[in-house]
Amino acid sequence: MTIRVSVVENIMSANDQLADTNRARFDAAGVFAINLMASPGAGKTSLITRTIEALRGDFRIAAVDGDIATTIDADRVAALGVPAVQINTGGSCHLDAVMLQSALPQLPLDALDLLIVENVGNLVCPAAFRLGVHLDVLIASVPEGDDKPYKYPTMYRGVDALVLNKMDVLPAFDFNVDYFHRGVEALNPGLAFFPLSCKTGAGMDAWFAWLREQIAAYQS
Amino acid sequence: MTIRVSVVENIMSANDQLADTNRARFDAAGVFAINLMASPGAGKTSLITRTIEALRGDFRIAAVDGDIATTIDADRVAALGVPAVQINTGGSCHLDAVMLQSALPQLPLDALDLLIVENVGNLVCPAAFRLGVHLDVLIASVPEGDDKPYKYPTMYRGVDALVLNKMDVLPAFDFNVDYFHRGVEALNPGLAFFPLSCKTGAGMDAWFAWLREQIAAYQS
Repeated sequence: MTIRVSVVENIMSANDQLADTNRARFDAAGVFAINLMASPGAGKTSLITRTIEALRGDFRIAAVDGDIATTIDADRVAALGVPAVQINTGGSCHLDAVMLQSALPQLPLDALDLLIVENVGNLVCPAAFRLGVHLDVLIASVPEGDDKPYKYPTMYRGVDALVLNKMDVLPAFDFNVDYFHRGVEALNPGLAFFPLSCKTGAGMDAWFAWLREQIAAYQS
Repeated sequence: MTIRVSVVENIMSANDQLADTNRARFDAAGVFAINLMASPGAGKTSLITRTIEALRGDFRIAAVDGDIATTIDADRVAALGVPAVQINTGGSCHLDAVMLQSALPQLPLDALDLLIVENVGNLVCPAAFRLGVHLDVLIASVPEGDDKPYKYPTMYRGVDALVLNKMDVLPAFDFNVDYFHRGVEALNPGLAFFPLSCKTGAGMDAWFAWLREQIAAYQS
């Protein structure tokens, strides 16, 4: 076990250095970058396409989509006419800084304001690998259940904003929003929290407004 | 990268050896063991509690529950009056053979017919670590979306049975069961497939009957 842990630490350290390099490239180009993490099927791609539709009038946007396999997600984003790069991890359960670095030459960074990175669907491993973005965002969803902050504390503790998607199906599930949010607050007090539905659009304006503010603050 | 891969291979090899040891202990005691894997919130614990309620009249059952943190799941199982051991992985994204081995001394193996192991909620990493059980079962759920076999092929390829849970909310989601099942069949032809709802109980009899058959075949 000792050997295993020390190897992981070495990998992490190399990853952190590359994350810093990614950040420097974003800042040199003036690109605000965010990393979206979630369980499989929580709605990462839906949030991305909705966000692109809402903000594309004011910002130049591109996306990087991470998945084990397929280009389903990048295809959905590219259908909106914005640059989209799919990273197929080929089995790896998360994006790391090297993978993101390898995607950057395929993007017109100098002609972008916002880069949205969609991580692999996984509520554990992506939290351990910094990418060099400016904001880490977690998307939870009602069908997953209200106990997830308690069961996956590392992920909830490490993010800068939390979206709770699929609020439209709340009546069909035993999901106590107060219990869920108390668990979040215990781990990450004051975390920006956006209950919404990507399907109906309800609650999305608050997310759009907050993200606009973050980009504006970065650009000023 | 070369160093990283070779280390992973060494860990896997050690894990496989321990998985064989676990299997030998199950077989010496005559315990049929299954491993349930799924995304966070797909309904692993609900399937376990339902299955215990249905089969406890005929079989002596215990459960091992893996989670990053909390004893929520083992508490739910223990509330049914069966032996339940919680493994808190403390950050690890999957159970491995060592973790399962460490739980076994706390269970009355000689007085059991069925051991149900609940893996950490994760659609990627658990597929890479054999535990030594007799059957690996995947639980998908309708809200996750019908593209998951295409995006997470390794998990779908490696299992012996597939439950599709939360069928009761099918009308509320854009989920095409045919598209989903075609993706499954391409990876794992003829895979035993059980669409059901742990909430309403619909479809569960087929799962119970199939599991009874598997246990009976093992015992004979």
